[in-house]
Amino acid sequence: MKTKTEYLYFNTRKKREYIRITDQIEEIVRQSGVAEGMVLVSAMHITAGVYVNDAESGLIDDIDHWLESLAPFGAYPQVNWPKPGETREVTATSTPYKHHQTGEDNGDSHLKSMLVHHQVILPITDGRLDLGTWQQVFYAEFDGMRRKRVVVKVMGA
Amino acid sequence: MKTKTEYLYFNTRKKREYIRITDQIEEIVRQSGVAEGMVLVSAMHITAGVYVNDAESGLIDDIDHWLESLAPFGAYPQVNWPKPGETREVTATSTPYKHHQTGEDNGDSHLKSMLVHHQVILPITDGRLDLGTWQQVFYAEFDGMRRKRVVVKVMGA
Amino acid sequence: MKTKTEYLYFNTRKKREYIRITDQIEEIVRQSGVAEGMVLVSAMHITAGVYVNDAESGLIDDIDHWLESLAPFGAYPQVNWPKPGETREVTATSTPYKHHQTGEDNGDSHLKSMLVHHQVILPITDGRLDLGTWQQVFYAEFDGMRRKRVVVKVMGA
Repeated sequence: MKTKTEYLYFNTRKKREYIRITDQIEEIVRQSGVAEGMVLVSAMHITAGVYVNDAESGLIDDIDHWLESLAPFGAYPQVNWPKPGETREVTATSTPYKHHQTGEDNGDSHLKSMLVHHQVILPITDGRLDLGTWQQVFYAEFDGMRRKRVVVKVMGA
Repeated sequence: MKTKTEYLYFNTRKKREYIRITDQIEEIVRQSGVAEGMVLVSAMHITAGVYVNDAESGLIDDIDHWLESLAPFGAYPQVNWPKPGETREVTATSTPYKHHQTGEDNGDSHLKSMLVHHQVILPITDGRLDLGTWQQVFYAEFDGMRRKRVVVKVMGA
Repeated sequence: MKTKTEYLYFNTRKKREYIRITDQIEEIVRQSGVAEGMVLVSAMHITAGVYVNDAESGLIDDIDHWLESLAPFGAYPQVNWPKPGETREVTATSTPYKHHQTGEDNGDSHLKSMLVHHQVILPITDGRLDLGTWQQVFYAEFDGMRRKRVVVKVMGA
């Protein structure tokens, strides 16, 4: 059994950023000499994610706005949904994240990280990433402008 | 170390469909001869998911409606949540997915795929999938009526 | 190749609970004798999750309230979002989970499990969990007060 471990470093200019890392993972797999196996790509932070999806820039904007709507900056909505069977206008109370009582302001970044998931595991076949045509690996930064890390661990034969 | 790689193919009749694949995965594990290890089950498309949950048909309907509410077809809601500490009626603007400027109409399918996650990894113990009583593996199609693929990679001893 | 399989058992006092299990996983890895590899930590139930995030108690409260807002107990909201391009007040219909027609009352627990994901896979480097400073592993119970199980499988060399 062969293994290889590398770390990728990021320091984004914006608070939220989506960075394609497929080629870097592919190169680490090549260097590992693993022909059959798997590679784990996992954020080492609790305010970042790793996901596989499309590299199309419009979609990346959509993802960013959608995540902000589901897990907004500053405060999370406690939605007063209608009672079962009822239809009516929706009201909500926005509650500042309790996490911010520690002095942090990144409660939303933690929730975005959980939504997107912080890791993927990619199959390796014949020494290459075994991905579909449109699958690209992304590092999703939700609390950037500081040094962050992703661990890449290859395992196989 | 043993590995085995297979591909499952799908071509659903409906745009969204949830297909139980536990038995097919179990059979691939049996053929691999792996007694102790793991099997990765991963969609090769960015508009599909793989998840583990209940095979109960009512719940599958619930999941489908819930996903459509959180990541609606056609346009995503930018919700104007109350300010921190405020309670009020919620307003929203529905913004057509930017991704659709490329000619696609499946922005929602990408978001549903991210919510559900596109992969699971199942433990193998004594040559069998080591799942709980109610755990079933599902392929979740979010943009069907075309040929799609899932990679199944077994690894172990 | 070495493997080691253990099961963790939980029986929470509350319906929803978030339990830090990092130390137990670390101990299983130590006992396995694996220096380089991975450990899968996966809930064996469809109403529970496993995730990696912060052990800060305020954030855990935030996560719990946020999950309840996105996947509420009893009934799920079918939100009538504005038409594409439209801005207006949001209305919703709360629909009791169809799953409850089976006699269950835990439809929300299934959805929360899907949001959080039911598993993580952790890298092992030099015989230790290769986690970032603030990364802690959590078992997330969404339908507790009964005996539940998590499988932990170590694999490596």
